[in-house]
Amino acid sequence: MGKRVALVLAGCGVFDGSEIHEASATLVHLSRGGAEVKIFAPDIEQRDVVNHLKGGPTEEKRNVLVESARLARGDIQDLAELKASEFDAVIFPGGFGVAKNLCSWAVDGKNCAVNEHVNSTLQAFHSAKKPIGLCCISPVLAAKVFPGCEVTVGQDKNVDGRFPDAETASAIAELGCKHICKNVNESHVDKANKIVTTCAFMCKAPLHEIFDGIGTMVQEVLKLA
Amino acid sequence: MGKRVALVLAGCGVFDGSEIHEASATLVHLSRGGAEVKIFAPDIEQRDVVNHLKGGPTEEKRNVLVESARLARGDIQDLAELKASEFDAVIFPGGFGVAKNLCSWAVDGKNCAVNEHVNSTLQAFHSAKKPIGLCCISPVLAAKVFPGCEVTVGQDKNVDGRFPDAETASAIAELGCKHICKNVNESHVDKANKIVTTCAFMCKAPLHEIFDGIGTMVQEVLKLA
Repeated sequence: MGKRVALVLAGCGVFDGSEIHEASATLVHLSRGGAEVKIFAPDIEQRDVVNHLKGGPTEEKRNVLVESARLARGDIQDLAELKASEFDAVIFPGGFGVAKNLCSWAVDGKNCAVNEHVNSTLQAFHSAKKPIGLCCISPVLAAKVFPGCEVTVGQDKNVDGRFPDAETASAIAELGCKHICKNVNESHVDKANKIVTTCAFMCKAPLHEIFDGIGTMVQEVLKLA
Repeated sequence: MGKRVALVLAGCGVFDGSEIHEASATLVHLSRGGAEVKIFAPDIEQRDVVNHLKGGPTEEKRNVLVESARLARGDIQDLAELKASEFDAVIFPGGFGVAKNLCSWAVDGKNCAVNEHVNSTLQAFHSAKKPIGLCCISPVLAAKVFPGCEVTVGQDKNVDGRFPDAETASAIAELGCKHICKNVNESHVDKANKIVTTCAFMCKAPLHEIFDGIGTMVQEVLKLA
């Protein structure tokens, strides 16, 4: 019997939704680990719709659940329906959509608000002592909801120009959390909180290294589940 | 010096664009193989925009190049600009977008028309004896453009209910091509034409098996390049 894992998405595309390759890599590693996966996303309008060719916002309106369904090949449910009791673990891939649609970090930084269903999902898994996996920018969700927890978003300095968003680590520290410096091929496990994080695309690295780093996160989550 | 590989996309989402996990898997394997990748898509309107949550078409209009840019994280070019002389190989992931936007197979079957830039791209790599990789439904492009070639889209019968679109193999045979039965973890190499194909999501299989099958296709393409 495989571990039951809920995956929470934030749209479909790095600049306004879930980072596609992080979400796909997570699903590949969960499949290899024999997990039974169900996919969820909030049924809300996206904060914005970014033209990924030109890089700027458009006038379009898109729904987070409908766009996330592209990654889920149609097999997805409203996050409001997620029952933590039916799962052994939850994982949040990254992408700007996490900081735009699941919380307001992209606009408000450490003073961000967290979507109510994202917040209740995180609280439910945490209080049931079930593991939570996060990558890329998603660890800020844990930092905001669980002050004092340990997470990584890579390095706290822009080492070799590979960590252009290194100041995220400072913001996490200002929230009363401990930022742990890790490389792209590593995860950090906060054993007390059962929170597993890896930096993924927060590091400028070849895609297969990001893929492998996400693999370590998934494997640690399945071990803890 | 890595092999220079062009990846051609058809949008972003299995029902109206490129199959996301096939495109991502191809990029992961190309990265691990040390390839230098450039991504292309035609600058045309999508045949339709499918609501992937509900499964039906919408009134929306989207552009194939703009939506493909989500998979490319913005780093993409118009397919009209692709010069085969600058690459060692070309790969087409699958998804219904291939049969809707790159050709009209979804509507016209073996009588389909092929987009002019897709056709010229295939002809240019073929005549330069450079390898062409295709997966899922994309092998129909080769079957249409290169009569007599050998491709696989999996099995020609719906073995164990895992190949619901097995009749595609018959249509390929009617085009004068040879369909080779292969499992999801295998590729077929048409050595004379340097065409490498694997069935990917044409087979109902766990995602990591599809990922590994695409890996065999990418590795064969890089070997031939």
